[in-house]
Amino acid sequence: MEANMGSLMGCTSSTPSFLIHLNRQNGAIFTRRCMGHLCLRTAVSACGSSSDAAMVIDKKRVGKDIITEIRTEVSRMKESISMVPGLAVLLIGDTIISEPYSVPCEFVGIRSFVVRLPEGTTEEKALESVSGFNDDPCVHGILVEFRLQSHMDEHKILNAVSIEKDINGFNPLNIGLLAMRGREPFFLPRTPKACIELLHRNNIEIRGKTAVVIGRSNSFGMPVALLLQREDATVTIIHSKTKNPEDITRQADIIISAVGKPNMVRGSWIKPGAVIIDVGISFVPDQYARYGFRCVGDVFYEEACEVASAITTDVGDPGLLRIAMFLSNTLTSAKRIHNFL
Amino acid sequence: MEANMGSLMGCTSSTPSFLIHLNRQNGAIFTRRCMGHLCLRTAVSACGSSSDAAMVIDKKRVGKDIITEIRTEVSRMKESISMVPGLAVLLIGDTIISEPYSVPCEFVGIRSFVVRLPEGTTEEKALESVSGFNDDPCVHGILVEFRLQSHMDEHKILNAVSIEKDINGFNPLNIGLLAMRGREPFFLPRTPKACIELLHRNNIEIRGKTAVVIGRSNSFGMPVALLLQREDATVTIIHSKTKNPEDITRQADIIISAVGKPNMVRGSWIKPGAVIIDVGISFVPDQYARYGFRCVGDVFYEEACEVASAITTDVGDPGLLRIAMFLSNTLTSAKRIHNFL
Repeated sequence: MEANMGSLMGCTSSTPSFLIHLNRQNGAIFTRRCMGHLCLRTAVSACGSSSDAAMVIDKKRVGKDIITEIRTEVSRMKESISMVPGLAVLLIGDTIISEPYSVPCEFVGIRSFVVRLPEGTTEEKALESVSGFNDDPCVHGILVEFRLQSHMDEHKILNAVSIEKDINGFNPLNIGLLAMRGREPFFLPRTPKACIELLHRNNIEIRGKTAVVIGRSNSFGMPVALLLQREDATVTIIHSKTKNPEDITRQADIIISAVGKPNMVRGSWIKPGAVIIDVGISFVPDQYARYGFRCVGDVFYEEACEVASAITTDVGDPGLLRIAMFLSNTLTSAKRIHNFL
Repeated sequence: MEANMGSLMGCTSSTPSFLIHLNRQNGAIFTRRCMGHLCLRTAVSACGSSSDAAMVIDKKRVGKDIITEIRTEVSRMKESISMVPGLAVLLIGDTIISEPYSVPCEFVGIRSFVVRLPEGTTEEKALESVSGFNDDPCVHGILVEFRLQSHMDEHKILNAVSIEKDINGFNPLNIGLLAMRGREPFFLPRTPKACIELLHRNNIEIRGKTAVVIGRSNSFGMPVALLLQREDATVTIIHSKTKNPEDITRQADIIISAVGKPNMVRGSWIKPGAVIIDVGISFVPDQYARYGFRCVGDVFYEEACEVASAITTDVGDPGLLRIAMFLSNTLTSAKRIHNFL
């Protein structure tokens, strides 16, 4: 896995730049604009050709690191208590597309269980499958995915998943526990958790920093804001009713965006030295692109690179980090259920 | 009740000012500093003697208005479906102090049920009482109050209250539903709900405004921030790890504080024309006061009066508004349980 890390990594698909491959053991790179403790010290790549450009936070590397750690933990668990975590996936309304979890599960030693329910399956059948996973002691994490058009009550199926195995973390009780001080949620939702991992594993301090989250969705904006607050950031959520959002982002040490508005966050919106995590993805027409469109983020990447100290974008993201989060939550669940420290 | 409204009302206990008694039917008072739509149009009193001072939001009047409305609704419910809401109060560890809910319940027509468990009662006995209230169809709201030293597991007792009757609204599931867009909590926690009522009933627009909440407690700061966000404000929570909180409060159209730090928010922290809701209470030594101390809020009241457009403070608050919120939540619960619109 490490052997791949020295390869050419694109800052965007059109402006490749060489990955500076260093880790904590080998040394540290500091960004040129250091904002308090907001420094990047681990694997980063230069964004664009300017010597004053932001460093690119290497999501792929963080994903690989986490997967390696999970593999080690699963192995330790197997050796110690002869148990391995199990991830169950219920695919509803899809009989063609293969599911993406089996291979990574196998790689880290997690057992995977897949049930495919074709279009037209009754709600009762789906609930039966969920109930079976809930009761199965070999299953520690459950994912339900609705593909194609399903005529089922999705809420009803999702609510049937036992909260102790609901690794998506979107159950309202889990969200409530995430919001409350002194309480612990069962799971951290995957994309918000991935953002925090990116900051932590690049030694970007969150405590005492001002953070702006753009977007307030249940699946990302709201939980990532709650997570940042648990990490002692001072958090503001910007949304569609916010007036002059650029005045607010310009005060922020950390900007996290997930609204799907192409290039909304311009360079002028960003405080020099800020850290940017762009989770938004949009497709815009481009007559020069192969298929007539290209993929852009919420943040105007080229402009942001000139102002921010560190940046990462979802554009072109292989999703490795998100899969790592599912595996991590499955492991967390198995350790909790079997009281394995 | 209305007859009392023309009485002298203290802006603080030391600087009384005459209540300007107007309501929506009679006319409207506009504050001199109007910030966009942030205008006070209903019952307010001048704060201090300066002609340029903030208007005092009249909490007592809002409390009375709500209680009057509840009384009317309870009466309508009784006439329509021959049912009245019921509020059950479990007092643990106190056999002396009388409970404060019976009289207001009686006034609005809500039945009240009080169980007192003296110091030394077993946890099982308390759980038995909660279970009885959960199952009683005449009970729609349950409050559990721990007084004096109790050796019980308070979390265990509180968690036993059915979420459909838990009018405190602090159950994690309820908080999760409050945090999520498109979901509805069973109840709004009382003090956050009271703050929103104060803003609504004084025609102070929340949508699109910047709001700062000082303090992130589970019982107030966090839920009031979630509520403001549901009302489409752009919300920032300030807490003990926030650097330069005054820079953040100075941007805010609405400041709500509940940290218990005497006079922390100075006049220089406040944007001209902002609206202030101060829920914090502290006691500070005062050799000239009758008992050697006096009660102050988080906000330096006299300074804030010179800058804000509207202000309200908990200092000297009779708690009428909070009791109104309990009664309101009990009514909400009864209407939901009996499907009474």
